[in-house]
Amino acid sequence: MIQNFITVLFGDQFAVMNTIGLIAFALVGSAKAIREEFDLFGITVVGLIMAFAGGTTRDLLVSRVPLALQSSIEISLGLLGVGLAIALSAVLTSPDSHPITLVSDAIGLAAFATTGAIVATETNVSAFGVVAIATINAVGGGAVADILLDRSPFILFDDFYASCAVLGGSAYWAVITVGAAGSTAAVACAVVTVGTRLAAVTYGWNLPTIQGLGLINS
Amino acid sequence: MIQNFITVLFGDQFAVMNTIGLIAFALVGSAKAIREEFDLFGITVVGLIMAFAGGTTRDLLVSRVPLALQSSIEISLGLLGVGLAIALSAVLTSPDSHPITLVSDAIGLAAFATTGAIVATETNVSAFGVVAIATINAVGGGAVADILLDRSPFILFDDFYASCAVLGGSAYWAVITVGAAGSTAAVACAVVTVGTRLAAVTYGWNLPTIQGLGLINS
Amino acid sequence: MIQNFITVLFGDQFAVMNTIGLIAFALVGSAKAIREEFDLFGITVVGLIMAFAGGTTRDLLVSRVPLALQSSIEISLGLLGVGLAIALSAVLTSPDSHPITLVSDAIGLAAFATTGAIVATETNVSAFGVVAIATINAVGGGAVADILLDRSPFILFDDFYASCAVLGGSAYWAVITVGAAGSTAAVACAVVTVGTRLAAVTYGWNLPTIQGLGLINS
Repeated sequence: MIQNFITVLFGDQFAVMNTIGLIAFALVGSAKAIREEFDLFGITVVGLIMAFAGGTTRDLLVSRVPLALQSSIEISLGLLGVGLAIALSAVLTSPDSHPITLVSDAIGLAAFATTGAIVATETNVSAFGVVAIATINAVGGGAVADILLDRSPFILFDDFYASCAVLGGSAYWAVITVGAAGSTAAVACAVVTVGTRLAAVTYGWNLPTIQGLGLINS
Repeated sequence: MIQNFITVLFGDQFAVMNTIGLIAFALVGSAKAIREEFDLFGITVVGLIMAFAGGTTRDLLVSRVPLALQSSIEISLGLLGVGLAIALSAVLTSPDSHPITLVSDAIGLAAFATTGAIVATETNVSAFGVVAIATINAVGGGAVADILLDRSPFILFDDFYASCAVLGGSAYWAVITVGAAGSTAAVACAVVTVGTRLAAVTYGWNLPTIQGLGLINS
Repeated sequence: MIQNFITVLFGDQFAVMNTIGLIAFALVGSAKAIREEFDLFGITVVGLIMAFAGGTTRDLLVSRVPLALQSSIEISLGLLGVGLAIALSAVLTSPDSHPITLVSDAIGLAAFATTGAIVATETNVSAFGVVAIATINAVGGGAVADILLDRSPFILFDDFYASCAVLGGSAYWAVITVGAAGSTAAVACAVVTVGTRLAAVTYGWNLPTIQGLGLINS
């Protein structure tokens, strides 16, 4: 019953998650570029790169021509996200730190961790491979966008961000391994990723440093 | 008649454009490294990376082993460009901002936008895929070179640079789509890219920012 | 006789060199991240990226799914290196500049130049392709780690580092070309790379700049 409901809701989990992720991450990338006063071309490029870099890296890792270059639907969804960011910037102050953008980022992270886990599982890689591809798919776009904006890709390190995708990818693998359907695993991955990310933002979660643990001799 | 002339002049458009692009971009990359006082090894590496990074990324995207690793001719052309930059540095002050280097950069941009469009068209990607691969082939080398020089890959954003490759790639796709020969499309792509780039440098073209358009609420 | 000894010692040269390289580079990457006061997740990520980025790039260039994503042994070796770095940081001051770390770095460089040359030779690329893939495999991890730490990937340029991998890869190709066994070539590559690197560190070797050669007109 629950299984049926999930299957109806997420018939083709990949398509659903991919659509959500592309729009959300293009919006976030463009909002960052608007804050940096990039021109319209730069705003579009950063938005599209944030939307497509993770999935393109995923596709390269599993040796296939990136989906983004084959399908015209993908680019349309990316441009929709760019347009939303421009529209938001007209009505909001600092759109890149607005809750809409922060939540979009968490949703994009969860959606892309899920698409990464789905593709990796189909490719027959190891358990580590599933978690690694889910994480790279989820954080790749933001990391490349940060490098293009000449910032350290801090999202990888400074707080509880990539860790959420690691947890989500691990949840996907665990659910598949106990024999459940891919649709259940997809929901588990998305819920774990977005849940831990929103909790981390809300409660200011951080992982300890070696220095903080008192382990280092200095 | 005109078609025949073009075919004779650009018999194998890919080989011609690739040769021009490799020499031109190796020269530009090495000139940048000379300005930064890199050692001879660094000058060679930055020159070769500027020459090869775009085409290698293109080849990875269409799932083939990069041409640069298979053919010894490619590396010889790259080293020729590096040698030209070293020779130029002996006779010119600030070779990296000399008109020879600026024009080489525009020519390399046009040549690589064209090789990217040719390869993409053979790979059966979408219209967006053709423009994206043309642009990545054209600007990839400069972007990676800038990251290695620890600078923001500003060429992607700061002025009318990548936009020229987007226009050139679009011209290629449009000419192919109306049914013309690949050689005509190659010439159209190269002319549009180098023409818009030289015009942008000469007249200081810029695209507007959201802030400049008065759209943003801040 | 010597050949037999080498074959016994390095039965499967790829597996031996790969194991050494993964542990050594994960240790070095994690030591860098500890110095920058990254959290435990960041330390693990930088260590694993330093261990895997070179080999993953190599595998992408020769169009195969990266080994690191297929085998669980690879990730275990990487995590072992991360653990060693954390253990070292508890007993040493500034573990990232300690001789143990500097020697680990030279050993990892040599091991990965060798694995790169082995894989490239099996892929039937040009002589330049063998040297290029050996060098990319050897320095790729350190370069990506430096970019993630928001530093210029100076190892590529500032001193005699990547040059050692170029010499090692060239030695591999030369030994194979004169008809010797792959195991001999592997030993030659590793010895040349680690020897030149340790000599460069000990004696402060540098390559000249154009400015230093008095060639430039400024």
